Amino acid sequence: MEPSSHVGKVDFKRAVILAEGSFGLFTSKTAIGLVRYRERDISCIIDSTKSGRTSREIIGTGDVPIVSSVETALEFDPDALVIGIAPPGGSLPEEWRSIIVDAMKNGMNIVSGLHTFLSEDPEIMENARRYGVRIWDVRRPENDMYVAHGIAGDVDSLVVLTVGTDCSVGKMTTSIEMARYAERKGHGIKFLATGQTGIMIEGDGVPADRVISDFLAGAIEKEILKYGDRDCIFVEGQGSIVHPAYSGVTLGILHGCAPDYMVLCHRLDRAEFKGFGGRIPPIDDLVELYERLARYLNRDSRICAISVNTWGVENDIARERISGLEDEMGLPVTDPLRYGPEKLFSEIEEF
Amino acid sequence: MEPSSHVGKVDFKRAVILAEGSFGLFTSKTAIGLVRYRERDISCIIDSTKSGRTSREIIGTGDVPIVSSVETALEFDPDALVIGIAPPGGSLPEEWRSIIVDAMKNGMNIVSGLHTFLSEDPEIMENARRYGVRIWDVRRPENDMYVAHGIAGDVDSLVVLTVGTDCSVGKMTTSIEMARYAERKGHGIKFLATGQTGIMIEGDGVPADRVISDFLAGAIEKEILKYGDRDCIFVEGQGSIVHPAYSGVTLGILHGCAPDYMVLCHRLDRAEFKGFGGRIPPIDDLVELYERLARYLNRDSRICAISVNTWGVENDIARERISGLEDEMGLPVTDPLRYGPEKLFSEIEEF
Repeated sequence: MEPSSHVGKVDFKRAVILAEGSFGLFTSKTAIGLVRYRERDISCIIDSTKSGRTSREIIGTGDVPIVSSVETALEFDPDALVIGIAPPGGSLPEEWRSIIVDAMKNGMNIVSGLHTFLSEDPEIMENARRYGVRIWDVRRPENDMYVAHGIAGDVDSLVVLTVGTDCSVGKMTTSIEMARYAERKGHGIKFLATGQTGIMIEGDGVPADRVISDFLAGAIEKEILKYGDRDCIFVEGQGSIVHPAYSGVTLGILHGCAPDYMVLCHRLDRAEFKGFGGRIPPIDDLVELYERLARYLNRDSRICAISVNTWGVENDIARERISGLEDEMGLPVTDPLRYGPEKLFSEIEEF
Repeated sequence: MEPSSHVGKVDFKRAVILAEGSFGLFTSKTAIGLVRYRERDISCIIDSTKSGRTSREIIGTGDVPIVSSVETALEFDPDALVIGIAPPGGSLPEEWRSIIVDAMKNGMNIVSGLHTFLSEDPEIMENARRYGVRIWDVRRPENDMYVAHGIAGDVDSLVVLTVGTDCSVGKMTTSIEMARYAERKGHGIKFLATGQTGIMIEGDGVPADRVISDFLAGAIEKEILKYGDRDCIFVEGQGSIVHPAYSGVTLGILHGCAPDYMVLCHRLDRAEFKGFGGRIPPIDDLVELYERLARYLNRDSRICAISVNTWGVENDIARERISGLEDEMGLPVTDPLRYGPEKLFSEIEEF
């Protein structure tokens, strides 16, 4: 890690989100998350294919203007450029490099959730020093090699973890909606972000998928102990316990936070793992499996509700299917974005 | 990573194992593993508290002499120093630093399984360059960001994974014993090492606990595909699916290799997780849990035998308890080190 004042956390107030060519409902998770949950700190979005429109016209939320370039973004006096898209192939495309350098030249700090760290790129860092700006690689974990002790279940806080039937089913959204609801009800809360978008929204967290696997449960446990004086900690889960590539991340977080309650997140229209194929197992099977694994570390742990993502499903049909799932599972079910998160708390006695 | 000829894999033939103050049955897993499975490439062991004796007197295996220092080790014309102990606290103690530099000065390459990479230590690397030797950080993973596709189950090879009730119960030993038995029977095999000792023995492998958690299943799957033309691949498992700190590593390996068969490893005298406390769940519970998790990716996967470590248990009692466990579990049970590994194959039809 570069021990430099040009590397580290960036606290933005008027950020530009780079989503060139890809701002849309299914193509830019980071951009959507930031517009939905941190809109007041976002000044505009760069996507030349949609310039002149607003975020609401494209994703149904926020009044963030869309512009065509860094140059046109300057009228908003931006303080940071947030990379809101993933590069094809993993390495930084040349055209992005020039956009990033251009942003730095105009005094913007850079916020990146890429696996490839910008702070390890000589050209980027040379420009950061030249223009006196800062690079925040959101995915760079603290490197303190703390190994979990299996004691997260001992804190007084109520720990609520979102778990999933797959990736990209609404775990972050559900955790944030629940955290904000609990806060409105007067509880002292912490949203423990574990993915790059959640970390950009909250300003801190554990980049779980980037942590060395020996220290993953430890990194989560450490945060639980740190916020153990709050009434509730809402932990963003990752992946799925049966996901071919990411199940280890899922279990490391689960055992690291030893949750009192879990909310199972699911997309109504998803039958196969996104981008991997293979059928997602039945929901009741997953409920039982998550509870079983959680109880080794917190014996009263249980799934208290199911959060469904009903995007694209007509209202009547969504309600009918939610009601059907409730009957089938014997658990409260709702879409927290569409109908509010209150129902997800109905079996948590502290609420 | 230092792009230098002084960093990378070391192929030793007359290595010295550094085990100062700690060569013993329960205190130096790496030293024991190397003496047991790579004795012909080991010239001596450094432990001044036991110098003049041999490995057999201390750990019951091998005829490796124990010496008091790097200087006294020189009579064996050693080509490498293997660090066979773990540092207290994680960082390199000063007294080790001088031993390592001393070894380099005498032309030895350095093999280290520490989490802290020697190849990132300026003083060590300066000396490596000065004395023209090489540093192998065994735990440094390939950094190619390959994400698993969930396809390891498709290879023709028979994939056999060791899983455990806890850490340090004999997973590496069981995998190596099975691999060597299969090789003696004429099968084309690969031992896929996943821990530092296994990697030092085999000369390659995946340092699973050091891999970034997003890429762990992928790193394993990639090796399975690479050796998919062998008759059998014996994969060294890590941790335990219910271990408070390492369960994520366990599951990442399990789903990454999608085993046809699993051998459950257990220590007869172990009731609580080593160094963590908390009771180890009943064996039948773990058998069912491992099978359930494995079957999401390989639906015929099953536990075919139980490998027990009976160290310290008298022969009659060991046999009685093995027989009791066989009746209880309905599975073949043996201690492969004490009674040979053959029985572990009895429900694998290819054998």
